[in-house]
Amino acid sequence: MIIDCHGHYTTSPRSHEAWRTEQIAAHAEGKAAPPRPSISDDEIRASIVNGQLKLQQERGTDLTIFSPRAAGMGHHLGDATTSEAWAAACNELIHRVCTLFPRNFVGVCMLPQSAGVSPRNCIAELERCVLQYGFVGCNLNPDPSGGYWKDPPLGDRYWYPLYEKLVELDVPAMIHVSAACNPAFHTTGSHYLNGDTAAFMQCLTSDLFKQFPTLKFIIPHGGGAVPYHWGRFRGIAQDMKLPLLTELLLNNVFFDTCVYHLPGQELLAKVIPADNILFASEMIGAVRGIDPESGHHYDDTKRYIEQLPFSPTDKAKVYEGNALRVYSRLSARLASAG
Amino acid sequence: MIIDCHGHYTTSPRSHEAWRTEQIAAHAEGKAAPPRPSISDDEIRASIVNGQLKLQQERGTDLTIFSPRAAGMGHHLGDATTSEAWAAACNELIHRVCTLFPRNFVGVCMLPQSAGVSPRNCIAELERCVLQYGFVGCNLNPDPSGGYWKDPPLGDRYWYPLYEKLVELDVPAMIHVSAACNPAFHTTGSHYLNGDTAAFMQCLTSDLFKQFPTLKFIIPHGGGAVPYHWGRFRGIAQDMKLPLLTELLLNNVFFDTCVYHLPGQELLAKVIPADNILFASEMIGAVRGIDPESGHHYDDTKRYIEQLPFSPTDKAKVYEGNALRVYSRLSARLASAG
Repeated sequence: MIIDCHGHYTTSPRSHEAWRTEQIAAHAEGKAAPPRPSISDDEIRASIVNGQLKLQQERGTDLTIFSPRAAGMGHHLGDATTSEAWAAACNELIHRVCTLFPRNFVGVCMLPQSAGVSPRNCIAELERCVLQYGFVGCNLNPDPSGGYWKDPPLGDRYWYPLYEKLVELDVPAMIHVSAACNPAFHTTGSHYLNGDTAAFMQCLTSDLFKQFPTLKFIIPHGGGAVPYHWGRFRGIAQDMKLPLLTELLLNNVFFDTCVYHLPGQELLAKVIPADNILFASEMIGAVRGIDPESGHHYDDTKRYIEQLPFSPTDKAKVYEGNALRVYSRLSARLASAG
Repeated sequence: MIIDCHGHYTTSPRSHEAWRTEQIAAHAEGKAAPPRPSISDDEIRASIVNGQLKLQQERGTDLTIFSPRAAGMGHHLGDATTSEAWAAACNELIHRVCTLFPRNFVGVCMLPQSAGVSPRNCIAELERCVLQYGFVGCNLNPDPSGGYWKDPPLGDRYWYPLYEKLVELDVPAMIHVSAACNPAFHTTGSHYLNGDTAAFMQCLTSDLFKQFPTLKFIIPHGGGAVPYHWGRFRGIAQDMKLPLLTELLLNNVFFDTCVYHLPGQELLAKVIPADNILFASEMIGAVRGIDPESGHHYDDTKRYIEQLPFSPTDKAKVYEGNALRVYSRLSARLASAG
């Protein structure tokens, strides 16, 4: 089985995103949000059959761990109340996708975060998504301010209430920023990658995984700059008299394979242990074109993996085993889906 | 000749850095800064002979393009006046090093930037350093706010007055942030790399090099996350209907080799044309230890370069030719130093 651990519902029905625009506009005017649009199962089916499902079949992957559009989370917009309503709407839609296509999609939720608002606010929605919807993880935004980095780093006690719930539910978090509203950053070109690198370093400089030894983070986009600068990070940890990164972080931190060219994938596979790499593509995401150098979609990451010198055992870990291990609830979820 | 294009005076005499602390403390109290300390040539000689020069000789490099300590620039501290005095002090010290060791060090200046203050303020100091001291470039901080990213992106007209002067003087800028005062970032672990990635993307999304076709930027630390995600950047440019990155950026943007392990260097050499790579180590910088995996200093980057499959022509470009081309004033400077 090939599990793509990083998919967002980027093809969701237009009325869903249109409602968000109306919701934020209403909030700005101090008015109540309009009623949510009615979205039929057929609309959802069409958006999936011609989108993610089509590419799953074309590319030969089996299952996508699926969450709301990351750039659309927009935790810097509105306030705690709008975030709560928007997260609930987005997660419900993911639940409907997973219910309609239970063999192809398993849900991961977005959280109702807001800049400067305690992550305690996220616990109820996380619990609802995991216990009622059968979701297997969440996306955690380390910068709800959208590129101004105003919230405390991930090692801070500020985040502990959420971590306690993640540990209790035994679900991992993918550390994923949303759209940048800071003109210094391009959302998918720099803010995403910088979020990944910042998050890794926040983990490195904290005692987070001493406090929460079973907490698991997936750092997406191939870990931002981290594998490319693995020597730098090893050296910084060493200068700080910390243990080896394998011991300090790699029981808890995992990287996905959203790297859109072969040399980058080769590097990732060379420096990061196979136990810490999870197959992913974030397809229909940041990069949608066909690479003229390969003749294939940049984000068809399976093609790169197939060219890497993984042993059969390691390849099985990257494609399936690690995902089943990191998303502890996934096996049960798949069994229940037949 | 082996030219290391990225060295900072991290071993400067203590009294120099102590004065900075006093200057900022005095500023906070609304008082005048104390008089600058008197630093003897012998103090400077000792700091260099036992520091950068020793490592040049041990590692077999010839010349370091040398600038004030990057983390020490601290453009988020004080105001325009303190920045001006501090930049002048730091640059003068670099000038003294280059005068004492004219065959080993050539100067690059820091700029008296301050968050929210027009870069016009930097022109006089840049001109002074290039025309009076014979410096061959400058370090330009794309985020004088120290991790809050409050200034406009590099493509904005805000920066044009400085670019006009860089073009007129025919000197390049290394895009280099300073210390992070935002707790979300670790200065050398995430802020430096994120600054590199953000700067590259700011160039990609602007018409900067159409406006300034002869402007040259060096993006340090191996280009942050850029080469690792070269496919992502190629694909984003393609989705935006922009020209190929080679055409759009690589006549103006260069990467250094401050990547502290062999797999990262291999990637850099594989994806970035040799014409755009400048040898550098940033030695006695971010990572000071010995890598137990290689038995050598992480930042002894020449050892990695020697293991790469560069042709002799390409290796000569990386070690020398590109630096002489990018730092247009360097040849004349070296000739005058004999």
